[in-house]
Amino acid sequence: MLMRAAVLTDFKAPMEIREVEIADPGPGEVRVKIAASGVCGSDIKALDGKSPVVRELPFVLGHESAGVVESTGPGVSSVKPGDHVIISMNGPCGRCRNCGSGRFHLCSGRTRMAAIAGLMGDGTTRLKVDGRAARPMIGIGSFAEYAVVNEPMCVKIDPSAPLAAMSLLACGVVTGVGAVLNVARVEPGSSVLVVGCGGVGLNVIQGATLAGATTIIAADIVRSKLDLALRFGATHAILSEDLPKQVGEIVRGGADYAFDVTGVASVLGDAFAATRPGGTTVMVGSPPSGEPLSIPPGLLFGSRRLAGTQGGDASPVRDLPMLADQYLRGRLDLDALITERLPLDRVNEAVDHVRRGAVARSVIVFD
Amino acid sequence: MLMRAAVLTDFKAPMEIREVEIADPGPGEVRVKIAASGVCGSDIKALDGKSPVVRELPFVLGHESAGVVESTGPGVSSVKPGDHVIISMNGPCGRCRNCGSGRFHLCSGRTRMAAIAGLMGDGTTRLKVDGRAARPMIGIGSFAEYAVVNEPMCVKIDPSAPLAAMSLLACGVVTGVGAVLNVARVEPGSSVLVVGCGGVGLNVIQGATLAGATTIIAADIVRSKLDLALRFGATHAILSEDLPKQVGEIVRGGADYAFDVTGVASVLGDAFAATRPGGTTVMVGSPPSGEPLSIPPGLLFGSRRLAGTQGGDASPVRDLPMLADQYLRGRLDLDALITERLPLDRVNEAVDHVRRGAVARSVIVFD
Repeated sequence: MLMRAAVLTDFKAPMEIREVEIADPGPGEVRVKIAASGVCGSDIKALDGKSPVVRELPFVLGHESAGVVESTGPGVSSVKPGDHVIISMNGPCGRCRNCGSGRFHLCSGRTRMAAIAGLMGDGTTRLKVDGRAARPMIGIGSFAEYAVVNEPMCVKIDPSAPLAAMSLLACGVVTGVGAVLNVARVEPGSSVLVVGCGGVGLNVIQGATLAGATTIIAADIVRSKLDLALRFGATHAILSEDLPKQVGEIVRGGADYAFDVTGVASVLGDAFAATRPGGTTVMVGSPPSGEPLSIPPGLLFGSRRLAGTQGGDASPVRDLPMLADQYLRGRLDLDALITERLPLDRVNEAVDHVRRGAVARSVIVFD
Repeated sequence: MLMRAAVLTDFKAPMEIREVEIADPGPGEVRVKIAASGVCGSDIKALDGKSPVVRELPFVLGHESAGVVESTGPGVSSVKPGDHVIISMNGPCGRCRNCGSGRFHLCSGRTRMAAIAGLMGDGTTRLKVDGRAARPMIGIGSFAEYAVVNEPMCVKIDPSAPLAAMSLLACGVVTGVGAVLNVARVEPGSSVLVVGCGGVGLNVIQGATLAGATTIIAADIVRSKLDLALRFGATHAILSEDLPKQVGEIVRGGADYAFDVTGVASVLGDAFAATRPGGTTVMVGSPPSGEPLSIPPGLLFGSRRLAGTQGGDASPVRDLPMLADQYLRGRLDLDALITERLPLDRVNEAVDHVRRGAVARSVIVFD
C-alpha cells in the first residue's frame, strides 16, 4: 500500500515527505501504524552521513516509536491487529549464544544483524520510493505512517498508555534507565553522578531515582539543563568542571556510580576519576569519534570499573512494559520530556530543534 | 621477645638480618610464628622505595605468609595458640560501609587503614630494632620469625595443608584466582585471555580452569613462561603481539574475558581490544606508573567492560580456606609454583631471583 514518509535521499539535506510503497508483512513480520516517533541524536548522525549503518540511500529514518499493529504476516503469534506496541530498537532472536546468556542487547542472530543494516531477514526491504528499494533505519524507519518490522521488535503494552510518551521508551528512556538498572545495577542509598543532562541524561537521573539512589549529582555545561535535571530528580546540580573535586565535596571519597552522557572522552575520564574506590562508571550512548579515552591505571587499581552499553543493555520484553508501568504509576516522567509534538511534515524543523539542543525531546505525532 | 628478621634500613640496599624485639600481642592482636613467606613483586617495589606505603624506615618487608599461632592478645576469640593460619593481606573490620556491602577488599576501617601504613590500630608498632620502632609491611612483616597481626588477618586452615604452599594463597594466588572468580566472574564454557604468565598470571590460568573456562589463551613475550602456562592449564599459548588478531583467530569475535597481568598500559589496551562485544577485561595487580591507559571508546560502545582489582577482591575467610581445600583436592597446583625454598639468611638472593624473573615463586621457609 501507499503511505507518506520522510525520505532521506541526500546526506546533510532535508528529508523529503514522499509517497512510499510499503509491502505487506512477510513471515514473522508485523506492520505497525506509527502513532509517534521521537527524534533522536542518532537519526541526526545518520542524516549527516556519520552512521556506519546508514550508507546506501534512500533511507527512511526514525527508530524511537510506538504504534498500533495493523496487520501481521504468516507465523506471527505474539501480537495481533489492534495491539498497542512499542517498537524496540532490538528484536532479539532468542536463539544465539548471547540471547541464551540473557544478553539480548548483543543478539547476533541473522534477522537482527540484517535489521541493523536496514534490511529484513531475507535481505530485502519492504519499502519502495519511485520503484526503488529504500531501507528503514535499524529495520524500523518510523518517520513514516507505517513500518514493517520483525515480530520480536513489537513489545505489547497497556493500551491505556499514551503512545507519544511510550515512543520515548524505545530508545532514549531505556538507554538512560537501563544504564542504571542493567549496566551499573545501582543499589538503594547510592550516590550517582550524571554528566550531561540532555534527553538521555535526564533518564539516567530518573533511573537513579527508581533504583533508590539518595544522592544524584547532575553536571552539565548549560545552566538551563541543570534546572531541568533538578526537576527530574537530581539532588545536586553542578557545572561540569573539575568533577573529582566538586563531587568529592558532596560525597566524601567520590560517587558510587558515574554516568557519562556527553560522548566526550575527556569528560568520561573525569567522571571516572570522580568515583570512589570500587565505583563504576558507565559510558552511556554513542562513543566520541576519534579521541581515545585516557584512564590513569592507578585509579583502576582501586577496584574501579568502566562499562560501555548499547541502549541500556535492555531486554525489550522485560524492560519496556516495566517502564510503561512505572509511567502509569507516576514514577517515571515522560510528559515533561516532550518539549514539542510536530506532524511529519515538520520533521526537518524537529531535527533542527534537536540539533540546537533547544528541546529535551521533539516527537513526531501522527493522526 | 627477641627474634631474627630481615630489616630494610636503606632503600635499594640489601635487607639486613638483625635481632628484632617483637612485643606481646595487644588487644585483638595475634602473634604468629611464621612458617613460610613468599617473595612478591610488591616487596621489591617497596625495597626500591617505590611503594607509597613504605616510606619511613626501618621496615620489615614480607606479606605473603602462613604460620602457627603462638599467642593471642586480650579479646581474641577466633584463633588460639597452635592453630594453622594464613595471614591475609587484608583484615576487614566487618563494620564499615564497604564491609557491610560485602566489599571486604575495600575495608576502610581504622585498623585496616593503620595496617596499610605498617601500624597497629593504636598507631604504634610492635617491632623495635636497636630500640627504634620498625614498621611491618601492610601490618604483617613476614620476613621474620614472628609477626604480630590483627585478628581478622588470621584465617584458620586445615592443619594438614603444608604451610609453604599455603603462604602463596595470601597474595599471588588469591589475586590471580580472585580476579577470575570475584572480579570477572567467569562462567563455565568461557574463553579467557591471560596476558603475562608470571606467578600471578599462572594463577589467573588456574582460576579460569576452576571456573570451567574451556578456552584459555596464555600470552607472554617469553617462550619459557608459555610452556609453564600450558602446564598450568592454558589451552593455547601465543607470543603477545597483535593480540586482537591472534585471539580472533582462536575465538571468533574475541575472548569473553581478558586479564592483563603485565602492568603495561598499552598491553592492557590490546587485551581489552581482544575481547568480544560484552566482554570484560580485568587489570590484575599493580598499575603501571605514569603511563595512562588509552581505550578507544568505540570498543566500550560494544558493552565491553574494564575492571580493576585489589588482591582479587577477596573475602579472606571465604576465599582462603576454599583455595586451601582446592589445593588439598588436587585442583589447584601450588607446589609447581614454588621454584625454590630458601632460609631467611638468603632473602636477598631470593629477591634477586624474583627480580630477574628466574622463578615462578621463591619462598622463604623457617624451621
